[in-house]
Amino acid sequence: MEIAAKAELAKRAAIGLAAVKTDRKNKALGAIAKALRKDSRRIIAANEADIKAAERQKLAAPLLKRLKFDEKKIEETIAGIKSLIKLPDPAGRILSATELDKGLRLYKVSCPIGVIACIFESRPDALVQISTLCLKSGNAVILKGGSEALHTNKILAEIIDEASRKAGIPKGWLQLLETRADVRQMLSMDEYIDLVIPRGSNAFVRYIMDNTNIPVLGHSEGICHIYVNGKADLDMAIKITVDSKCQYVAVCNAAETLLVDRKIAKKFLPVIKTALEEKGVASTPSTSSGQAGSPQVEIRGCEKTRKIIKVKAATEKDWATEYLDYILSIKVVDGLDEAIEHINKYGSKHTDAIITSDKKAAEKFLEMVDSADVFWNCSTRFSDGYRYGLGAEVGISTNKIHARGPVGLEGLTIYKWKLYGNGQTVAEYASGKKRFTHKKLF
Amino acid sequence: MEIAAKAELAKRAAIGLAAVKTDRKNKALGAIAKALRKDSRRIIAANEADIKAAERQKLAAPLLKRLKFDEKKIEETIAGIKSLIKLPDPAGRILSATELDKGLRLYKVSCPIGVIACIFESRPDALVQISTLCLKSGNAVILKGGSEALHTNKILAEIIDEASRKAGIPKGWLQLLETRADVRQMLSMDEYIDLVIPRGSNAFVRYIMDNTNIPVLGHSEGICHIYVNGKADLDMAIKITVDSKCQYVAVCNAAETLLVDRKIAKKFLPVIKTALEEKGVASTPSTSSGQAGSPQVEIRGCEKTRKIIKVKAATEKDWATEYLDYILSIKVVDGLDEAIEHINKYGSKHTDAIITSDKKAAEKFLEMVDSADVFWNCSTRFSDGYRYGLGAEVGISTNKIHARGPVGLEGLTIYKWKLYGNGQTVAEYASGKKRFTHKKLF
Repeated sequence: MEIAAKAELAKRAAIGLAAVKTDRKNKALGAIAKALRKDSRRIIAANEADIKAAERQKLAAPLLKRLKFDEKKIEETIAGIKSLIKLPDPAGRILSATELDKGLRLYKVSCPIGVIACIFESRPDALVQISTLCLKSGNAVILKGGSEALHTNKILAEIIDEASRKAGIPKGWLQLLETRADVRQMLSMDEYIDLVIPRGSNAFVRYIMDNTNIPVLGHSEGICHIYVNGKADLDMAIKITVDSKCQYVAVCNAAETLLVDRKIAKKFLPVIKTALEEKGVASTPSTSSGQAGSPQVEIRGCEKTRKIIKVKAATEKDWATEYLDYILSIKVVDGLDEAIEHINKYGSKHTDAIITSDKKAAEKFLEMVDSADVFWNCSTRFSDGYRYGLGAEVGISTNKIHARGPVGLEGLTIYKWKLYGNGQTVAEYASGKKRFTHKKLF
Repeated sequence: MEIAAKAELAKRAAIGLAAVKTDRKNKALGAIAKALRKDSRRIIAANEADIKAAERQKLAAPLLKRLKFDEKKIEETIAGIKSLIKLPDPAGRILSATELDKGLRLYKVSCPIGVIACIFESRPDALVQISTLCLKSGNAVILKGGSEALHTNKILAEIIDEASRKAGIPKGWLQLLETRADVRQMLSMDEYIDLVIPRGSNAFVRYIMDNTNIPVLGHSEGICHIYVNGKADLDMAIKITVDSKCQYVAVCNAAETLLVDRKIAKKFLPVIKTALEEKGVASTPSTSSGQAGSPQVEIRGCEKTRKIIKVKAATEKDWATEYLDYILSIKVVDGLDEAIEHINKYGSKHTDAIITSDKKAAEKFLEMVDSADVFWNCSTRFSDGYRYGLGAEVGISTNKIHARGPVGLEGLTIYKWKLYGNGQTVAEYASGKKRFTHKKLF
């Protein structure tokens, strides 16, 4: 099918889906979970074909691991759907209600955005996760997964489409794209598509932004900072820095740069160096890191740092680098203002933390650091939809509009204004015959 | 100054402005109001220079009228600032609060977006309105007004800048651009600018969208519909149709197309024709329309309409046209579904109303019409920030993300996540030593 035809079908389905009640959406999600289990052999067979092809193409081991979709992964995916069913419907919530005048009531009601296009990495479970999040929130979805997972994605999309349609969800709400050329075409269809969510590298997200008029819910890299203020509890600072850097290095909310207040640098730098080199990973074993043993953290310091501890030199480039590895850059700063300025200059508006016992300094940091997530006395690794209690995570947004930080189901909705009258005209109010009361009901 | 330098200054000011308390922002607004009155002679002199230049360039009379900024306009503008002072601060509101665990509290707090660029029409009062809305919400602003108003805008920007800076607002928060070339440069500065609000024609908004990576709070044309359902009270339908079409024709929330249910077409079409032609404007005098007498509404009908009443033929183009004039297209539809489909195909996602006594039909219409404002039994002309009780209107958005319909001060804010801990690390939760409670506080 032509991409335009697919997008048009999705748009048409989205209109119908917006009127589907919560109960029916949940029943459809239940049917999808059941179908995934029933068809697990077919899914696994398709996945094995993808894996064999990937092995022939000498795909790197970590990628192969992500591609794998076995019995265990299917069960995890089903568990995910079951907890999604329990979440409240993000659409149909009354956000505010105002009586404009007697018999003229205005409601601001949350509703689906419409058609969401998502381009995602090679994990096939992402397809199930994204499509069920969209279904729960009442959005039609256009999906493009990694080409390595093509067979697995195709069968998963088939199963989800069939099960949901049997449960009464409008035909066409889920569309699968297969090639990069499809994506390029899709990006021009702002007539049908309301939001693009690209998941992947920074360069990839930038490419999408540069090539479409459709709004993009972007996720840029995470250059996260820990700032150890002059009035910090240094034991706490060590514990939080080690966790932020080492608990799982390959993720966007891991810390990349440590800013240390001049006043405590002499005391703090030697102990944090020891902690990162010796205790590092050993004190915080992580099953997710996929690392055996406990790699030392390589420190790259500014000149002032290197006068106190013996470490490699950091260059200008280090301050703007997301290592995603056991590397930490350290800079000595004159105080709170320089820390804020450094973060706003080099950070990626993701997650930044201050360690201090000074409430006033903390509040200033939280106000003036222009990031989605600003923390006081805790690890940057907390910025995550599940840890925040959002129930499900669509992604982490570094946008400044619509949704920011960990995005839950709510991020897949917008609102519309519903006005209920009984014959009112504006002329009656313009002439002064009637007056607005603007009585807040909710 | 270079445009990049201006944008960088605005960014820097925005960081400081985010931490300025409500009280100081309100004091600055008061100081601006006072300064505008004090300097009214200078403003009027500058405006007279603009008007003379515009007259020499033979600017059309309506444009000259919009350009005029006299004592009366200044007083209106000051009144606007005074009511803005009374509105609650949209930034700093706690949107939700969750105790993730004992001693680990998460707050979702509204905050300014950052730097907002606004390109607006020739009315100089728009400069005052937009800049004060931005100040109230804590945003820095880059402004570009109509070139005809250059002298007036320059002096207004000077007065506002000076008065606000004396009141403690960070230097550089207000930047004025002067030429179209400036705007082109500004559009590439997504590093510094967080949101563009273009006000003007559809083609102009589209031009901005096509030439920037910065998110755009767009306002497209208003092709608004009235659908008269088979179960409508026909007297009410006449009253609402006349108001929606004629109360003020030159605005985006005026109706352009009337959809009439087949079942009542024979009865309704002759009476609405008479009402639009005879009673029309006469029954709803509008001071805003600027029209003397009561122009007849020209009706353009579909084939079925023309079998019942004698009117001009509507072409395919009519369904997609925003007349902004005393013209109304009429189409006979088979029922609710065709009405919804027509609106979603030809409408502009702005404002659409159903006239019916059938609650079920109304609810379906409100759910499935994919527009910002969906009304039951009242005039489309109600979709407006002041009528909605929002207190101030930034614009009317036909976006599907961030803000939709009439946008109040809230639309100039986003939120950040503030997490308050006392030494927590993720490792403690990953290992099972601690557990999240996710207790909802607010």
